[in-house]
Amino acid sequence: MDRAFIFDVFGTLVDWRQGIADAAREAFGCRGLSVDPYAFADHWRACYDPAMERVRSGSRGYVPLDLLHRENLDQTLTAMGIADAFDEAARNALNRAWECLPPWPDVHQGMDRLRPFGLLAPCSNASIALSARLARFAGLRWDAVLGAEIAQDYKPRPEVYLAAARAFGLGPEQVVMVAAHNRDLAAARAAGLGTAFFARPTEYGPGQDRDLKPEEDWDLVARDLADLAGQVARRS
Amino acid sequence: MDRAFIFDVFGTLVDWRQGIADAAREAFGCRGLSVDPYAFADHWRACYDPAMERVRSGSRGYVPLDLLHRENLDQTLTAMGIADAFDEAARNALNRAWECLPPWPDVHQGMDRLRPFGLLAPCSNASIALSARLARFAGLRWDAVLGAEIAQDYKPRPEVYLAAARAFGLGPEQVVMVAAHNRDLAAARAAGLGTAFFARPTEYGPGQDRDLKPEEDWDLVARDLADLAGQVARRS
Repeated sequence: MDRAFIFDVFGTLVDWRQGIADAAREAFGCRGLSVDPYAFADHWRACYDPAMERVRSGSRGYVPLDLLHRENLDQTLTAMGIADAFDEAARNALNRAWECLPPWPDVHQGMDRLRPFGLLAPCSNASIALSARLARFAGLRWDAVLGAEIAQDYKPRPEVYLAAARAFGLGPEQVVMVAAHNRDLAAARAAGLGTAFFARPTEYGPGQDRDLKPEEDWDLVARDLADLAGQVARRS
Repeated sequence: MDRAFIFDVFGTLVDWRQGIADAAREAFGCRGLSVDPYAFADHWRACYDPAMERVRSGSRGYVPLDLLHRENLDQTLTAMGIADAFDEAARNALNRAWECLPPWPDVHQGMDRLRPFGLLAPCSNASIALSARLARFAGLRWDAVLGAEIAQDYKPRPEVYLAAARAFGLGPEQVVMVAAHNRDLAAARAAGLGTAFFARPTEYGPGQDRDLKPEEDWDLVARDLADLAGQVARRS
């Protein structure tokens, strides 16, 4: 196969906010804590980019996202005033919520339709361990797990996209990056990859004000993954 | 999931000798060459271990197996006196025969039965590109593609097994190496992994004299992968 589609995962394929809020609601409920699980999910996620930035900038060597999530969880519990309610084991258990996030409803059909047209892999900031377990939970079927860990760096650094293309034995122009995030696609395009966009207008909750539409003339723009797969099929 | 099964692929899951001989028979037929395709497959495969040994010994940096196969193909065509019949494009096409090898008949059922009991990945000397394409052809369904490329070394060097366990976020004792080759399992055991063996008595053709039975007390010994999966299911 001389073509591949590589995917952002958090937000593009799975609803991290709902999955994290569901896990938090359960963890809070059995401890009698009245904390808004969505506010908790939003705070935890807000620590994500600054934590990766320390690796991207070179001030910290590559560590897997699982560890960054775990450190960010400590920060989030403290910020919300509920650090005392979670011991080490409970924190490790809650951290695994990132392995159990629900896919958006169009994802299975879209991946199945797209599969004949190219190799499929995540190009996520998740580690291999996290990507593989999340794929099991969410029913994502990959040809390989690519992304941050094989590049030992984090998106949107160009090496992450280039390492994914290289791992499949392809040039960047033979690979399409699929994401619901304009910033991810801008970086993929700058690295020479094709780009495909669809919006996930509730990824950040009902008041989302970012990534509601394509901000550049991406190679493919679709309603969702199933629609994207249909466009690829009709052009092939 | 706190357990994984990692697999040797060439010989253990797919019949490389038949697949390479089939591709060679076709390539020879349309050129009017009368060369035994099995002898050709055996010669090509015999170059495999010495080529990797140069990497393992450090006299050559890591290069993907696709390149070693391609260099070994040149040697094999010359040794068989048919080098003039294959130009560069024909050699590259024939080299891709390694991406199209038939699985042994028990493999799909065995993998499907084993899947609930752990993460599944190849731990092969193949590159990610080769493993992914071969998996598509042979219908192997993996949770991730591990093996030589992520370790940047070749089996039976311990780092290849250890890197696979680490990529899944597991200790070596949580991972079982599955192979039809005693040498592969001896190295995996020395690195701390569990071991599972079944024989592929015709991998090297009808006169095979190696790996016909277990040479150590491997943790699991089975008739084939389907039988192995049954044993794991009954013990779980």
